[in-house]
Amino acid sequence: MCVPDRALVRVQDLTPEKADQLIWLRARIHTSRAKGKQCFLVLRQQQFNVQALVAVGDCASKQMVKFAANITKESIVDVEALVRKVEQKIESCSQQDVELHIERIFVISQAEPRLPLQLDDAVRPDGEGEEEGRATVNQDTKLDNRVIDLRTTTSQAIFRLQSGVCQLFRDTLTKKGFVEIQTPKIISAASEGGANVFTVSYFKTSAYLAQSPQLYKQMCICADFDKVFCVGPGKKSSHHVLPPCAAFTLVRSLRCFQTEIQTVNKQFPSEPFKFLEPTLRLEYTEAVAMLREAGVEMGDEDDLSTPNEKLLGRLVKEKYDTDFYVLDKYPLAVRPFYTMPDPNNPKYSNSYDMFMRGEEILSGAQRIHNAQLLTERAIHHQIDLEKIKAYIDSFRYGAPPHGGGGIGLERVCMLYLGLHNVRQTSMFPRDPKRLTP
Amino acid sequence: MCVPDRALVRVQDLTPEKADQLIWLRARIHTSRAKGKQCFLVLRQQQFNVQALVAVGDCASKQMVKFAANITKESIVDVEALVRKVEQKIESCSQQDVELHIERIFVISQAEPRLPLQLDDAVRPDGEGEEEGRATVNQDTKLDNRVIDLRTTTSQAIFRLQSGVCQLFRDTLTKKGFVEIQTPKIISAASEGGANVFTVSYFKTSAYLAQSPQLYKQMCICADFDKVFCVGPGKKSSHHVLPPCAAFTLVRSLRCFQTEIQTVNKQFPSEPFKFLEPTLRLEYTEAVAMLREAGVEMGDEDDLSTPNEKLLGRLVKEKYDTDFYVLDKYPLAVRPFYTMPDPNNPKYSNSYDMFMRGEEILSGAQRIHNAQLLTERAIHHQIDLEKIKAYIDSFRYGAPPHGGGGIGLERVCMLYLGLHNVRQTSMFPRDPKRLTP
Repeated sequence: MCVPDRALVRVQDLTPEKADQLIWLRARIHTSRAKGKQCFLVLRQQQFNVQALVAVGDCASKQMVKFAANITKESIVDVEALVRKVEQKIESCSQQDVELHIERIFVISQAEPRLPLQLDDAVRPDGEGEEEGRATVNQDTKLDNRVIDLRTTTSQAIFRLQSGVCQLFRDTLTKKGFVEIQTPKIISAASEGGANVFTVSYFKTSAYLAQSPQLYKQMCICADFDKVFCVGPGKKSSHHVLPPCAAFTLVRSLRCFQTEIQTVNKQFPSEPFKFLEPTLRLEYTEAVAMLREAGVEMGDEDDLSTPNEKLLGRLVKEKYDTDFYVLDKYPLAVRPFYTMPDPNNPKYSNSYDMFMRGEEILSGAQRIHNAQLLTERAIHHQIDLEKIKAYIDSFRYGAPPHGGGGIGLERVCMLYLGLHNVRQTSMFPRDPKRLTP
Repeated sequence: MCVPDRALVRVQDLTPEKADQLIWLRARIHTSRAKGKQCFLVLRQQQFNVQALVAVGDCASKQMVKFAANITKESIVDVEALVRKVEQKIESCSQQDVELHIERIFVISQAEPRLPLQLDDAVRPDGEGEEEGRATVNQDTKLDNRVIDLRTTTSQAIFRLQSGVCQLFRDTLTKKGFVEIQTPKIISAASEGGANVFTVSYFKTSAYLAQSPQLYKQMCICADFDKVFCVGPGKKSSHHVLPPCAAFTLVRSLRCFQTEIQTVNKQFPSEPFKFLEPTLRLEYTEAVAMLREAGVEMGDEDDLSTPNEKLLGRLVKEKYDTDFYVLDKYPLAVRPFYTMPDPNNPKYSNSYDMFMRGEEILSGAQRIHNAQLLTERAIHHQIDLEKIKAYIDSFRYGAPPHGGGGIGLERVCMLYLGLHNVRQTSMFPRDPKRLTP
């Protein structure tokens, strides 16, 4: 490794306690402004930045000031500098109480002079500064240049929150005795069918991409792992699944990420996320009644369309003042074949969805643990039994009653933050038209 | 959920403190032996088991004893039973100091009478009991019936250790400020080439399965995430990659899993894993010299064949008494195009592998962070630049010097435990001939 033989200080640690110390720092040139015999730089590390100054004098020649002024934005530099307390707070930087007086500067990695997008434009709220002719950056340009777009304070906050959420979920489950498992990504048969089945060439044959780890999670339950979870790509290629019992803890704990939430809100303002404790639980029949009262025509066993889910979200918010609730006891007819029927009413099932701001984040259920009932339900759903043989066979040698579900990490982050496009919470999103970067 | 309205006790909590209490328990029938007016059962939960007794008397009729005796092995039952201290330890069970006197028994899930394999056979060490005509179970039968095979104490120990290792790695990295990222599983171009490229049908076009998250990890470094990791399927479909700096912590911490290690050793005896602190670091030139001294003919810049890696492992063990070491400074010619050349000697590179018991578990390096040098090296390796455009472009707008690597979770577990087949540490392994279960 090309590690310099000097201790590098972090920008976030540049506080008045470091005043009058000579330090080394590795950071990006965020902005640069030459002014006579001086050059003002803003040096950035992730969401932190500090003002720095190269001025003609004892430590810097005219040439050095010129050299510094010519370093392209986004380049990475090493600087040796004196930390100086400032009298007036520097409002535009995260480190407001100090500035750096640069004595030496080295370019570690030079950025090309024309950036495909400007970071300041990429974090500008829609509409702001339009009159002054300031630009914003459209979503496709951002995604085409994702590596630069991810450097903005908004992106840094989103993905640090996402990493934190993931960790929080895992810790919650591990403490409850869950075992983390790794499920196969390539399977022999597209057991759940559906439209978006991805075929994979596999040595001399062909196979399918696993759309969901669910069947394997259940097989692990049959294999005595008792409580299992996995984190990985979910139903859609941009989903990640986390188990449901962690969802309640999650919603409570998301409040810890205030800094990240506020950073994202600066660019994308949203209403604060509200929820009740204990969590509101509605039954499907109640939801249907609420929708009918609002003028929706639907049968008792009809599924909820996305617009109706959103309408229901608004009705629930009005009535109960919560952005988070569980909708329980879905009609059996609208759920997958492995869903346990309600023993008290065969038209319904022991299944539920969880909603955030009117959109589904989690789908869960008690699963059928009896091979014969499972076979009957699969036949009823016209599923090719041969394709799910290994799955059904798992229940033949003693299977404990169990339930579970999958939660979309990216959707949770999107909805909690009040964003409107899951690509914003997917680091390198994929859709039918996008396969790069 | 079909949750009984009674508190269920765990088998592992059945200790003499519970003596004379009436408890409810949900467990599997591990073995069953009827003997006159009594039926002895062993009830199992994961790696724990307890002896239980149904006897004709106040609480049980002759019919009930017969009913209990007829419950098939591996069925799941709920029992209400009195905990009784025993005078003589029950050596064959994990709970040696108590037994259960069953008053009521319900079958929750009945196993089919013919099991595809016997758990006792599946955990028998190779060769043991051969004279008495006792069977062992071959690997394919085990894998074909993985859900049952995973119930054995050996499998339970392996995968609980694996889950623990995963958690340990994540905790180590999170504490060091690493951000967990989710990288795309489907990519537009098989950037690293190689023989085992999996093509995926993708809507109206075709794409490839990502073989390694490495390029995306590097792109995240260029996107200012500073330190990143991801856990997911690696180079081969059965690999999982974890970053290298956690490797040293790992090796130290693996010792915590003594119970699991001992359980696995009962079936698969192995030498205790030895390592030095600090970890032994050898340079490639020293390794070549050791191999030549042992009679191997090889050039300075030749790669190590697998047999030579294993031989080197034995030579290192003899000389340094360690099963774990780092081999540093590989010849540039045998490493991938993105590897940073050694600035002091262009024939070598800033790259390394880590070995456990003579087999590679981790491959890492300083990566090139300069777009021009990266382009030159890609051309030298005859890689189609168009296919890695997004990757190379990531380095054009300022890229920090960085390094990293990927570690195979399943290989680490296999080698640390002294096992010889990675299928044993892969829950649902895939290979050219196996796509199920």
